[in-house]
Amino acid sequence: MKTILILNGPNLNLLGTREPEIYGSTTMEDVIADLRERFDGIEIEYFQSNHEGDLIDKIHEVGFDRQYIGIAFNAGAYTHTSLAIADAISAVKVPVVEVHISNVHAREAIRHTSLISPVCCGVIAGFGVDSYRLAVEAIMNF
Amino acid sequence: MKTILILNGPNLNLLGTREPEIYGSTTMEDVIADLRERFDGIEIEYFQSNHEGDLIDKIHEVGFDRQYIGIAFNAGAYTHTSLAIADAISAVKVPVVEVHISNVHAREAIRHTSLISPVCCGVIAGFGVDSYRLAVEAIMNF
Amino acid sequence: MKTILILNGPNLNLLGTREPEIYGSTTMEDVIADLRERFDGIEIEYFQSNHEGDLIDKIHEVGFDRQYIGIAFNAGAYTHTSLAIADAISAVKVPVVEVHISNVHAREAIRHTSLISPVCCGVIAGFGVDSYRLAVEAIMNF
Amino acid sequence: MKTILILNGPNLNLLGTREPEIYGSTTMEDVIADLRERFDGIEIEYFQSNHEGDLIDKIHEVGFDRQYIGIAFNAGAYTHTSLAIADAISAVKVPVVEVHISNVHAREAIRHTSLISPVCCGVIAGFGVDSYRLAVEAIMNF
Amino acid sequence: MKTILILNGPNLNLLGTREPEIYGSTTMEDVIADLRERFDGIEIEYFQSNHEGDLIDKIHEVGFDRQYIGIAFNAGAYTHTSLAIADAISAVKVPVVEVHISNVHAREAIRHTSLISPVCCGVIAGFGVDSYRLAVEAIMNF
Amino acid sequence: MKTILILNGPNLNLLGTREPEIYGSTTMEDVIADLRERFDGIEIEYFQSNHEGDLIDKIHEVGFDRQYIGIAFNAGAYTHTSLAIADAISAVKVPVVEVHISNVHAREAIRHTSLISPVCCGVIAGFGVDSYRLAVEAIMNF
Amino acid sequence: MKTILILNGPNLNLLGTREPEIYGSTTMEDVIADLRERFDGIEIEYFQSNHEGDLIDKIHEVGFDRQYIGIAFNAGAYTHTSLAIADAISAVKVPVVEVHISNVHAREAIRHTSLISPVCCGVIAGFGVDSYRLAVEAIMNF
Amino acid sequence: MKTILILNGPNLNLLGTREPEIYGSTTMEDVIADLRERFDGIEIEYFQSNHEGDLIDKIHEVGFDRQYIGIAFNAGAYTHTSLAIADAISAVKVPVVEVHISNVHAREAIRHTSLISPVCCGVIAGFGVDSYRLAVEAIMNF
Amino acid sequence: MKTILILNGPNLNLLGTREPEIYGSTTMEDVIADLRERFDGIEIEYFQSNHEGDLIDKIHEVGFDRQYIGIAFNAGAYTHTSLAIADAISAVKVPVVEVHISNVHAREAIRHTSLISPVCCGVIAGFGVDSYRLAVEAIMNF
Amino acid sequence: MKTILILNGPNLNLLGTREPEIYGSTTMEDVIADLRERFDGIEIEYFQSNHEGDLIDKIHEVGFDRQYIGIAFNAGAYTHTSLAIADAISAVKVPVVEVHISNVHAREAIRHTSLISPVCCGVIAGFGVDSYRLAVEAIMNF
Amino acid sequence: MKTILILNGPNLNLLGTREPEIYGSTTMEDVIADLRERFDGIEIEYFQSNHEGDLIDKIHEVGFDRQYIGIAFNAGAYTHTSLAIADAISAVKVPVVEVHISNVHAREAIRHTSLISPVCCGVIAGFGVDSYRLAVEAIMNF
Amino acid sequence: MKTILILNGPNLNLLGTREPEIYGSTTMEDVIADLRERFDGIEIEYFQSNHEGDLIDKIHEVGFDRQYIGIAFNAGAYTHTSLAIADAISAVKVPVVEVHISNVHAREAIRHTSLISPVCCGVIAGFGVDSYRLAVEAIMNF
Repeated sequence: MKTILILNGPNLNLLGTREPEIYGSTTMEDVIADLRERFDGIEIEYFQSNHEGDLIDKIHEVGFDRQYIGIAFNAGAYTHTSLAIADAISAVKVPVVEVHISNVHAREAIRHTSLISPVCCGVIAGFGVDSYRLAVEAIMNF
Repeated sequence: MKTILILNGPNLNLLGTREPEIYGSTTMEDVIADLRERFDGIEIEYFQSNHEGDLIDKIHEVGFDRQYIGIAFNAGAYTHTSLAIADAISAVKVPVVEVHISNVHAREAIRHTSLISPVCCGVIAGFGVDSYRLAVEAIMNF
Repeated sequence: MKTILILNGPNLNLLGTREPEIYGSTTMEDVIADLRERFDGIEIEYFQSNHEGDLIDKIHEVGFDRQYIGIAFNAGAYTHTSLAIADAISAVKVPVVEVHISNVHAREAIRHTSLISPVCCGVIAGFGVDSYRLAVEAIMNF
Repeated sequence: MKTILILNGPNLNLLGTREPEIYGSTTMEDVIADLRERFDGIEIEYFQSNHEGDLIDKIHEVGFDRQYIGIAFNAGAYTHTSLAIADAISAVKVPVVEVHISNVHAREAIRHTSLISPVCCGVIAGFGVDSYRLAVEAIMNF
Repeated sequence: MKTILILNGPNLNLLGTREPEIYGSTTMEDVIADLRERFDGIEIEYFQSNHEGDLIDKIHEVGFDRQYIGIAFNAGAYTHTSLAIADAISAVKVPVVEVHISNVHAREAIRHTSLISPVCCGVIAGFGVDSYRLAVEAIMNF
Repeated sequence: MKTILILNGPNLNLLGTREPEIYGSTTMEDVIADLRERFDGIEIEYFQSNHEGDLIDKIHEVGFDRQYIGIAFNAGAYTHTSLAIADAISAVKVPVVEVHISNVHAREAIRHTSLISPVCCGVIAGFGVDSYRLAVEAIMNF
Repeated sequence: MKTILILNGPNLNLLGTREPEIYGSTTMEDVIADLRERFDGIEIEYFQSNHEGDLIDKIHEVGFDRQYIGIAFNAGAYTHTSLAIADAISAVKVPVVEVHISNVHAREAIRHTSLISPVCCGVIAGFGVDSYRLAVEAIMNF
Repeated sequence: MKTILILNGPNLNLLGTREPEIYGSTTMEDVIADLRERFDGIEIEYFQSNHEGDLIDKIHEVGFDRQYIGIAFNAGAYTHTSLAIADAISAVKVPVVEVHISNVHAREAIRHTSLISPVCCGVIAGFGVDSYRLAVEAIMNF
Repeated sequence: MKTILILNGPNLNLLGTREPEIYGSTTMEDVIADLRERFDGIEIEYFQSNHEGDLIDKIHEVGFDRQYIGIAFNAGAYTHTSLAIADAISAVKVPVVEVHISNVHAREAIRHTSLISPVCCGVIAGFGVDSYRLAVEAIMNF
Repeated sequence: MKTILILNGPNLNLLGTREPEIYGSTTMEDVIADLRERFDGIEIEYFQSNHEGDLIDKIHEVGFDRQYIGIAFNAGAYTHTSLAIADAISAVKVPVVEVHISNVHAREAIRHTSLISPVCCGVIAGFGVDSYRLAVEAIMNF
Repeated sequence: MKTILILNGPNLNLLGTREPEIYGSTTMEDVIADLRERFDGIEIEYFQSNHEGDLIDKIHEVGFDRQYIGIAFNAGAYTHTSLAIADAISAVKVPVVEVHISNVHAREAIRHTSLISPVCCGVIAGFGVDSYRLAVEAIMNF
Repeated sequence: MKTILILNGPNLNLLGTREPEIYGSTTMEDVIADLRERFDGIEIEYFQSNHEGDLIDKIHEVGFDRQYIGIAFNAGAYTHTSLAIADAISAVKVPVVEVHISNVHAREAIRHTSLISPVCCGVIAGFGVDSYRLAVEAIMNF
């Protein structure tokens, strides 16, 4: 079955507990369950790591596999500091959608620059956890 | 009936003719027709102008009207130069989603800074004309 | 009779409704009425537009007319982005006073640079709508 | 008959009256009359506006019309601030020559950056109103 | 009686003698005398020093005293270099109005940044010595 | 028993061998032994890793555990490059003190900016390995 | 007896009254009394001035006197603007510890650069008035 | 006979061979021959050097000679790096027109700054080798 | 036997598959086999990781071992972002040569700054996979 | 008798003791004695202060007195931070020569910018205490 | 016979005498003699000049000659300032390798930017005079 | 006899004719004649060139010759652009004094940065042609 990888970077394992006034109290388990329910003809895979290298390894692993039709990737803070992840995205064949829960452009200046945007096919930011659903919608329409 | 305004800024009247290698050949008429077909419980209104002032006037006009549940706004080049439009968005009550057809972050540096991002509730960029559909999806989920 | 033009730029038509915690709830109608009452030997004219071009046209229209002894100009966001308005001010003969309701220097960085300050004769900022009265006082003392 | 559009941006309606020590006392009417006399096998059309949107509308209007062989465009202060006009120029098919009366590079720093230069085919600056004649010469040689 | 402090920073003791083509020939003695005459229900106190520390000491001295309804403060060059004075203003309770004789924004770049603007309630600049009168007007209207 | 975590980032495993003219010849084993001796009513735990992700995992692990009263964190070079670690610190509840052995502000420019300072409760830098003891002192006084 | 000078710069005479939400309500008198009680084998001397020159004079006065084993120096806003104080510290022989009550790195950008850090032996910031005690601890361990 | 100097800087001896996709295949010999044919009442002199010093020497040599009515100067890469050439132009009496074959503003950033523009009377760029003819036209109209 | 470590950073495991128009189709296995054949009196060891921490661990592991006469290190994207790796290189005793397959200075701006150059003994960039051979040549000549 | 004021800013009272490897061991007493001996037809006056305000007061005091033919001013660190002193110099009539003992341009970046250079008539830097003699020579030749 | 040009820029004639603690005491004569000995099937030609124009002339002279298989070019300080040399390299057909004796990236900031890197095929820096040999090795492997 | 070289860079051959309102009407011949008259126990040699390479060649020629006790060098515009000249100065043994006729710090920003200051022993600027005499005075006192 066609698969979409939901890929989460550093600190997103804390979602639902960390700074709920910014990120809300929904956990990633809730998000994934909801996605699986909504989109039943598609496999929703989930992976999270706080390690930059793990995220690169994962992108390499699925990025040449035709079963995957897209990656919805919330790189967390690595969005702004990891050129290595950007290189990984640009090297693979599976399209990657950049996802953010909060509107990063309304936060501190360091979060206004994304190193991965130029190599992602699109960006969705600011819709809370609904950003993940919109990314899946976008990928299914490619 | 609940209404969503699709608001387009400068040069977007040329969509489908201008630089098709970047923007494709679909026109805004096609886009709007498609949106109206997909979302039948909602009114889809369309307005385009090359005039910064007209866009501000329009935002003022609908921005306090409870019939409108959101604005999907592709401000074109004004995204990067118009603080006045940003002030208009921040003044009104209707939520505004920033929309771009191309991935602006993969283009020249001047297009990496959006003056309106900090006052929009979210950003969708890079999915071609499908960006408009995703914005409507997002607004309907608020 | 000698005339002073109160000239307002983008979004100032919303004064009294927009972000009242910053701008208060007085409307421009109240402000103009109050000015006309206080200064009875002088004509107080009022013009507002959200269009950069309209503001330039207006400055050209009154700027060579000796009946006008000054313009109290709150250019709103165009203060920080419109070199064309600055050129208009520098072209005309009637002196222009730059007016701001809030203390622009205490807000975001983009509002710390005024393109029109170098061509205005003076600046009054931060006194709420009383800034307009002080500008009229200043013009009458030229 | 083949046509060249002379297109003027903000404040250029004042030419001949405004800051004559910089711009001289010739008016645009004189300039256009002189061009029509010099170049008799060609239609010389003239349009001026202080409105950014009007200039974009005009560029759209003539920019796909094969009767026009070129636009000699003095964008005034919009040269330095209008990305929307640059987008319009880049979208149309008629070639555009950037024209300036004064040597903009010898004036304040903000006038050293032109947003439209990269999308114009060439630049002529600093020859007073003779810059318009040189632009027409250039267009006729394309 | 209610008191307003006119506080002057470095080199303003020379007013009337120094660079009269910029600052005119009126001395601060003339200015204070004129203010006392115009505003007879209010005490006008005057203090000048070339010492940053003296200005801070003075602000501390009057800044918690309810007899003072405001300070009209021309900090001269310290406007642009003294964070310590800014801290003093922000620490006290009496409101401070920033005053400049010349239009500082029309002078060299270093004078375009004011460290004290963010902690003053308002700014009046460019009206010659009339700037002091306008500041007193502003304070009396708080 | 109440616990303080001494957390060390990249290259600090080499302490005592690496560039002794800057860092001295004391090893972290010496430092920890000394701390355990000095502070006998408190548990001193030690963890070091060269992996950014390991440091984030560790912060998550102890950061919500009430047994820990503080983390004395020398993030080494990650101080200046890891926004992800800063996000981890800001997400957890246990207070974190930023520690440096050398005076980072007296070294190259890249070491003058700390991404973690804004989310730590305090900073101690420049006292050699005594910086760790001072951090423990500080934590015990919270 | 061995002496440590606690040296305070501008506005710190207001400690306990000024912006207590940032600095707390403890006064410097309380701080000094507490230090004298805690450290009974050492003389604790205190000096404060709002004058940059006074602080330099004081540093010169004690900086070559072998009775002094260290200076715990909170230079307030001069931290960020006074190269002259930095030169004084670098000229004398007594070691100087830079002290801040608040975490200066978590405040506005201008407070992120310290001109005196490169010439101090260490920095302690963000522990409220306990920062002074930690500085004394550090000096006693030199 | 009145003379115009066509002065070419570094690498322009290669014109017609070097990067023809940017500069075309016309050589400077063709250009000069064409100019001499078109303008028969005027002497067209040509000089090229790759040496900054030679260009300065040449400007000195002709720059005070009343036989020369202008210099059409394509300084090549020295346009962007030679302040010494700019000083030479500003020292002499013969007017200098800055010429570029390509539209330098549409190339890399380093070519957007011209050190000689402020001291030339005008700029012509982007018309291929026709730029030289336009410069001669301009000079003849002075 | 004397050993040289060929150390590769993120994404270089993809060499030969990733963006072959930039990097060619030779794999690292080919490169290492070729090196072992060419240099038969020396041990060629190979290690690659996408993890910043693994690279640091490896540098520590071999960096004090006298059997190693040098490291030829292609740090990939970490070249431009990892101060921690730079610290590791500067801490160890074995000399490190910075290697790049492509000419990093001819690519995007972010790749023009190398954090590790200042602590490497030399740089070889732009010769395709032959860069590794040249680095080995260089190390053998130390 | 004609008088030249040798004016010294902060920390220069330490000359001869402070950082002798940079400044040598000659004291200002030696320097002044030597100058008085060399130049016997002229009065050599000396003043030093660590207080910015004292230096301004002194400049005001002598700056309008025709007995003074020049000031040789070593402003120390205030050279780089005091706009107020620059204003004082520009206000007075007596010419001021900027003097430095060390070559300030060969030291840290903050010492490369002089706020007072633009208002001094000339600069002498880098000749040790002989810089004072050269300044006197220069003044006597005005 | 196939020829490689060793091309040296300004001050490299002094090699072996100038700052030997940085550059060693080997002269270029030694270097060339050694290269000729090592590589006997290839002609090694040598040219040095302190004149930017001479270097450009030389590059033009050999750059289209098929006898030359490469240029090993140490442009000295012109590396960082000469866009004209960069243009020459980009115009010719013979490949150019950028060579530096010292590790330029470990020296002052101005030496971190190379204008010629983007047009050279590769860079070798930091291996002392062995850098020339490595460049020859690289060229022979093209 | 001991010799001092007066070395002049580009455009200084025009001294006395070029922009006399800035540089006066004295020629270099006058200056040299005057120096020879004043200083009779010393040889005054003069060399000027507009060629950067000639200046480097000259510095090499005299820079190791013990007969020369110093070079008074006015590098003109090369002061601000020539790193190659700076390298030449730093390579030779004869001390070099940087000389400017005008106060370069009071002119445009590009003239505020001197590439040669860090390698000269001192700087004399702003005293008109008397700057040369002061430089000779300085050299004779070394």
